[in-house]
Amino acid sequence: MSGVKPTLEVCLSPALLHLYDTNDAIVVIIDIFRATSTITSALHNGAKCVIPVASVAECITIGAATSNSVTAGERDGKIAPGLQHGNSPLEYPGEFIRDKTLVLTTTNGTRLLHMVEGAAQIVIGSFLNLTALCDYLLARNKRVLLGCASWKDKYNLEDTLFAGAVVDKLQHAFEVADDSARSARHLYRSSGGENLIEFLKDSSHYKRLSVYGLEQEMEYCVTPDLHPVVPYLEGREIVIS
Amino acid sequence: MSGVKPTLEVCLSPALLHLYDTNDAIVVIIDIFRATSTITSALHNGAKCVIPVASVAECITIGAATSNSVTAGERDGKIAPGLQHGNSPLEYPGEFIRDKTLVLTTTNGTRLLHMVEGAAQIVIGSFLNLTALCDYLLARNKRVLLGCASWKDKYNLEDTLFAGAVVDKLQHAFEVADDSARSARHLYRSSGGENLIEFLKDSSHYKRLSVYGLEQEMEYCVTPDLHPVVPYLEGREIVIS
Repeated sequence: MSGVKPTLEVCLSPALLHLYDTNDAIVVIIDIFRATSTITSALHNGAKCVIPVASVAECITIGAATSNSVTAGERDGKIAPGLQHGNSPLEYPGEFIRDKTLVLTTTNGTRLLHMVEGAAQIVIGSFLNLTALCDYLLARNKRVLLGCASWKDKYNLEDTLFAGAVVDKLQHAFEVADDSARSARHLYRSSGGENLIEFLKDSSHYKRLSVYGLEQEMEYCVTPDLHPVVPYLEGREIVIS
Repeated sequence: MSGVKPTLEVCLSPALLHLYDTNDAIVVIIDIFRATSTITSALHNGAKCVIPVASVAECITIGAATSNSVTAGERDGKIAPGLQHGNSPLEYPGEFIRDKTLVLTTTNGTRLLHMVEGAAQIVIGSFLNLTALCDYLLARNKRVLLGCASWKDKYNLEDTLFAGAVVDKLQHAFEVADDSARSARHLYRSSGGENLIEFLKDSSHYKRLSVYGLEQEMEYCVTPDLHPVVPYLEGREIVIS
């Protein structure tokens, strides 16, 4: 209907996904530290595609069956045994990843992605592609659900902060339709919208990952618009146009 | 251990309660619009006790079996058929409720209260008893989980705002232990801590209840410290000392 704005909602945890109707919506998967940041970087840097998988075993199997592929994933901040690379966006510059298939296992982001049913499209969101994603969603003019991957189903600050940034940019063209979207927007505004890494230093995930010396990676992950592409799921592969 | 602060966490929805360890914790039930506000008011105004029940049928049965009782509850903003009163704190002044047992059916607050297992104590939180509650929790020096009743498991702004007010007041004496507690505190601070009702006018619940003309009730529910008592669950009854 002309004049009726599409709705924009935020799902704060995969454990709340059943409360939302994903049918025919565009669902944005958000896993800032670090799955969706790494996927966006690798694809913008020329990867052929990313295949997200749930387990290390599946990662090894698919990697072995796929020519010119790289297997990647971490457990407890280290490259998982049997895999070749880690889960950091800084590990995938163009000279390394161009034309390769990245088979990536992550816990939270991959799980959420595989839980979504009936969506018109599943796309990947991160600060690295914030403006490109928002432009994309504005052009579609379709119902949107922003899905936070969270941490083992527990609410996290960085995914919600990103969702809030998107709500802040889209609110003029969408109906902000639930309290989690409103709250995410408040959170983003209370961060000042700049120096996000300072804001996030008081978060569970920052504390957890900084023990592994990943401060530089996290700072990279919250830098807006370094990789202006919109990855989307096609079959089992994540690709860009 | 001396010097170690007890943890303070916030559960944003009953659907996330399984992620928290409630054993031996003090669990605060929060249902601002309006169950926990009404319970706090009625008890401070002299009610003998409140019996929270899940269904209208149970409310009628227990009401009939309890001398000097009042049955109360709403569905869709109106007194539920078969019950005597509604779910508004303004309905229970002292001259009416003193020495009576209030048998109250509410959907979200009651459900959360009955889901909690193994807690050292279950207490009732609302803006109406904010300072009394915080003083109580400070004196106990025990692990605390703030449980938002939410709306049919969906995150809501007013319960989280209240949780944030509690975190703001307790943070010096507790370890703020999860991102939802941090985020609730950000939300409370972004509200300015004053004129909460203006802040909440952009919330799902305010919009829903104002259709029924309940603006005055909601404004009452966010007025701090009108009823400085700490209701707690004892058996099936909610009482004050």
